[in-house]
Amino acid sequence: MSVITMRFLASAMAPGLDRTVSGGTVMKWIDEAGYACASGWARRHCLTVYASGVRFHHPIGLHHLVEVEARLAYTGHTGMNIAVEVRSGDVKGGRMLKTTECLMVFVAVDDTGEHMPVDAWKPGTPGEMALARAVRTQLEAYRTPQFA
Amino acid sequence: MSVITMRFLASAMAPGLDRTVSGGTVMKWIDEAGYACASGWARRHCLTVYASGVRFHHPIGLHHLVEVEARLAYTGHTGMNIAVEVRSGDVKGGRMLKTTECLMVFVAVDDTGEHMPVDAWKPGTPGEMALARAVRTQLEAYRTPQFA
Amino acid sequence: MSVITMRFLASAMAPGLDRTVSGGTVMKWIDEAGYACASGWARRHCLTVYASGVRFHHPIGLHHLVEVEARLAYTGHTGMNIAVEVRSGDVKGGRMLKTTECLMVFVAVDDTGEHMPVDAWKPGTPGEMALARAVRTQLEAYRTPQFA
Amino acid sequence: MSVITMRFLASAMAPGLDRTVSGGTVMKWIDEAGYACASGWARRHCLTVYASGVRFHHPIGLHHLVEVEARLAYTGHTGMNIAVEVRSGDVKGGRMLKTTECLMVFVAVDDTGEHMPVDAWKPGTPGEMALARAVRTQLEAYRTPQFA
Amino acid sequence: MSVITMRFLASAMAPGLDRTVSGGTVMKWIDEAGYACASGWARRHCLTVYASGVRFHHPIGLHHLVEVEARLAYTGHTGMNIAVEVRSGDVKGGRMLKTTECLMVFVAVDDTGEHMPVDAWKPGTPGEMALARAVRTQLEAYRTPQFA
Amino acid sequence: MSVITMRFLASAMAPGLDRTVSGGTVMKWIDEAGYACASGWARRHCLTVYASGVRFHHPIGLHHLVEVEARLAYTGHTGMNIAVEVRSGDVKGGRMLKTTECLMVFVAVDDTGEHMPVDAWKPGTPGEMALARAVRTQLEAYRTPQFA
Repeated sequence: MSVITMRFLASAMAPGLDRTVSGGTVMKWIDEAGYACASGWARRHCLTVYASGVRFHHPIGLHHLVEVEARLAYTGHTGMNIAVEVRSGDVKGGRMLKTTECLMVFVAVDDTGEHMPVDAWKPGTPGEMALARAVRTQLEAYRTPQFA
Repeated sequence: MSVITMRFLASAMAPGLDRTVSGGTVMKWIDEAGYACASGWARRHCLTVYASGVRFHHPIGLHHLVEVEARLAYTGHTGMNIAVEVRSGDVKGGRMLKTTECLMVFVAVDDTGEHMPVDAWKPGTPGEMALARAVRTQLEAYRTPQFA
Repeated sequence: MSVITMRFLASAMAPGLDRTVSGGTVMKWIDEAGYACASGWARRHCLTVYASGVRFHHPIGLHHLVEVEARLAYTGHTGMNIAVEVRSGDVKGGRMLKTTECLMVFVAVDDTGEHMPVDAWKPGTPGEMALARAVRTQLEAYRTPQFA
Repeated sequence: MSVITMRFLASAMAPGLDRTVSGGTVMKWIDEAGYACASGWARRHCLTVYASGVRFHHPIGLHHLVEVEARLAYTGHTGMNIAVEVRSGDVKGGRMLKTTECLMVFVAVDDTGEHMPVDAWKPGTPGEMALARAVRTQLEAYRTPQFA
Repeated sequence: MSVITMRFLASAMAPGLDRTVSGGTVMKWIDEAGYACASGWARRHCLTVYASGVRFHHPIGLHHLVEVEARLAYTGHTGMNIAVEVRSGDVKGGRMLKTTECLMVFVAVDDTGEHMPVDAWKPGTPGEMALARAVRTQLEAYRTPQFA
Repeated sequence: MSVITMRFLASAMAPGLDRTVSGGTVMKWIDEAGYACASGWARRHCLTVYASGVRFHHPIGLHHLVEVEARLAYTGHTGMNIAVEVRSGDVKGGRMLKTTECLMVFVAVDDTGEHMPVDAWKPGTPGEMALARAVRTQLEAYRTPQFA
């Protein structure tokens, strides 16, 4: 399975929430959905190695239902490149809006932390192929510049 | 929408988990999914008034992906009767098993706690009508005996 | 010892509490008190196998002192049938009210999860004998109907 | 009521516990029991102003049942002097041992944080009078030396 | 103050930690340090609008002391561009290693969520000027490609 | 290193915080900083054996930046005597005030809980020598009286 959608109440996953969820809490949810997608594909424990392009469009409120969709875009030898989208809306009947998006890279590891090969993901539909191209282009752009 | 499925990692929702999730933690998840189903239907804040028939078939492990499905069975004037089923399996590729099931009753309330009427749910398919009958029968049986 | 009363501040056990404690959090407390009662009797680790008749009479507030009393009603070969009552009131001097009640069944297990026999509990006083009868009647009623 | 005993499972109050409870977590429990004792006596919100003589005799384990007993020793105009004792033992049938003890001072406050007078506590039994004397002596000894 | 270093035990900030801290938890810490840096400079509440280049070099263990250093790189009209570096090592005397790095953008907001202007940060030393240039180059590279 | 300063946001370390941090939560933070100081000096796991003179001068608010400074005062054979000072102020630019102070004693232990010798700390500056004298005097005064 190359895509998984987590779904939960903001208040259940962020006890003690004041009024809106902090950016850091949203990043934690993104990482958990990406992990579920990566380790479900690899059938192994995985580690986060990279996250980028985390854009926060709208705040997430106390009473929001949250959906975090993680979608495998393309695979390398041991790495899995995953696009994550967060949507949320008031659980009492509100419309779901895209609140955050992000790209992530995970690697599969064995019990000693060694990187392990993963099955290749073959995009089949035009949409899957377009996603693979877009994510590859963006991740390569992110990686080129060197931070001092 | 009369059915909602929450999905999350056991480890994300129960930090500090030892080896398997306690029955009480599963009941907390059931209540949250039931609340999302009820308040999504009523478009109001809801309160839990009753839970029964909580059967624990299998333990839920640390690395499990958890699905909690809450399904509106039938409505009264202010009450919503909801059947909840919990499934879980190893996020690293395991098969999902039914781990827990439960019936719950919620009421919609306004800001002062007053019970508020809710739209009637009209089961349409044979499956929905059978669920409504089964849940009604079971809840009535649960309510008859009086506890000393 | 066949009865145990847990006592704590709602705010200490449910950090991040908004105004009243959710039904799910109360069910988590009920499970913990039931577990303490069962494992104290069995002198072994125990698992929750069933909960029923969870009635929520009053909400529990942020500043409430909470008492959760779990009382062994009768025992089977490996199972312990326990009645739980929750009372709460403002810690700043309020009267304690019954807020929730519940019946639970626990089994004793060894390290591999095998069910283990437990000592029989012999109700001695008229009150204990009445409780055993009432709980047995109610649990049997709960178990009869089959959910779809 | 001049004495209150909190009772809970270590694992429920300290989720994520490794093997034994940290000293800081025990101090948090002591403060909560002292707060319940003070605010129950004052029938107001209270603030911790002083803690001393926190002695850790035994570690508290993951499976321990914990009792924290807070006992009003003597009162001043706005202050309440409270002796706290922590006992714990394996919930699966272990003997309760005294694990920690402590003295605390709380003041009652109104909504603006102003100190408010409290009813005087009159020790009646020889044990209560001895406790009042012992706590007063010890707190005065603690307060005399100046740090730096 | 244009730089702030948070310091804490991994076990205190991530209760229930298994063996190593998840990438998502590290991202939550990075966001908190970035928030403290941004809101300390702006003297207002701030919101996370962007994070990028989150590279995970080494895992962070249960017994690690963690340092999260957030450094203002350059300011726009309402935005603050911040470089964050995470270092960690065994609290029992281990050497601190760089474990994660990241770039973040925050905006200052008023009570209604409106973006508010912030004082300009004027890099003074050669190191500060080099950081400003490097972060600006990298953030621009990150922003150019469009996802999907 | 004989001194360590922890630094974090109150809201990050006390999720679910209402308006001000409870005294018990501050004591938990003090214990963590003392532990980091002790185990960093001993290069071993340490246990809290004593805390005293915990004075609460000012409350700590929801938006406060918190600094907890733990400073080795003098060492015995296996014990480390540590002075802790807590400062806090609004992260949005407020001045840091001393909010709490405390003395603590830790011992180094091996894996079986046996006390282990620690390197002696030799105060070098006049300030260090004055601190050692003041803490020793105060701890001795605290220990003399016997409770009950």
